[in-house]
Amino acid sequence: MKRVGFQFKVRPDRLAEYKERHKQVWPEMLEALRETGWHNYSLFVRPDGLIFGYFETDESLAAAQAKMAAKEINMRWQEFMSPFVDAQARPDETFVELEEYFHLD
Amino acid sequence: MKRVGFQFKVRPDRLAEYKERHKQVWPEMLEALRETGWHNYSLFVRPDGLIFGYFETDESLAAAQAKMAAKEINMRWQEFMSPFVDAQARPDETFVELEEYFHLD
Repeated sequence: MKRVGFQFKVRPDRLAEYKERHKQVWPEMLEALRETGWHNYSLFVRPDGLIFGYFETDESLAAAQAKMAAKEINMRWQEFMSPFVDAQARPDETFVELEEYFHLD
Repeated sequence: MKRVGFQFKVRPDRLAEYKERHKQVWPEMLEALRETGWHNYSLFVRPDGLIFGYFETDESLAAAQAKMAAKEINMRWQEFMSPFVDAQARPDETFVELEEYFHLD
């Protein structure tokens, strides 16, 4: 089992709406995440829009992302979320993996 | 059980040494963390020295920090780590809590 940390950025002027949408993530999206190995998955936000993600998975962030990229529901969710990021990319293409340098069970 | 996300900053010019020290955290420090409710605790780093911490605890970041602040070993560890942060404070006094806005078990 691998613990993954990653970050990306959301537009601070649209943060309230972005967080609101995450109170009702589509059930099919949640099911796709579970099926592709996103376990104990949390997203945290700093007031300026910096997002930190944490989850546990069998293999790696790259593998979990590749599996999600193949899901049609993910395409639709990322499109739905794209107004909240500044990049010319789908939000999940802006994830930057962080290095775990310490762990205590 | 509460999931906690927090961040702080380490001097990028001393990051290699900082990470090295975390390969051999003192056993007494690890024991103190366990005793004061820091479970499944991971620290992640971005190349510029931004640190993201994640752990699970019974109550809150504030409670877990207060319990650690009462441990003599923590005083010594924070002193040992203080050259790596820019602040005029112990590193653990610079933790900024983040808001969890999404979770999937």
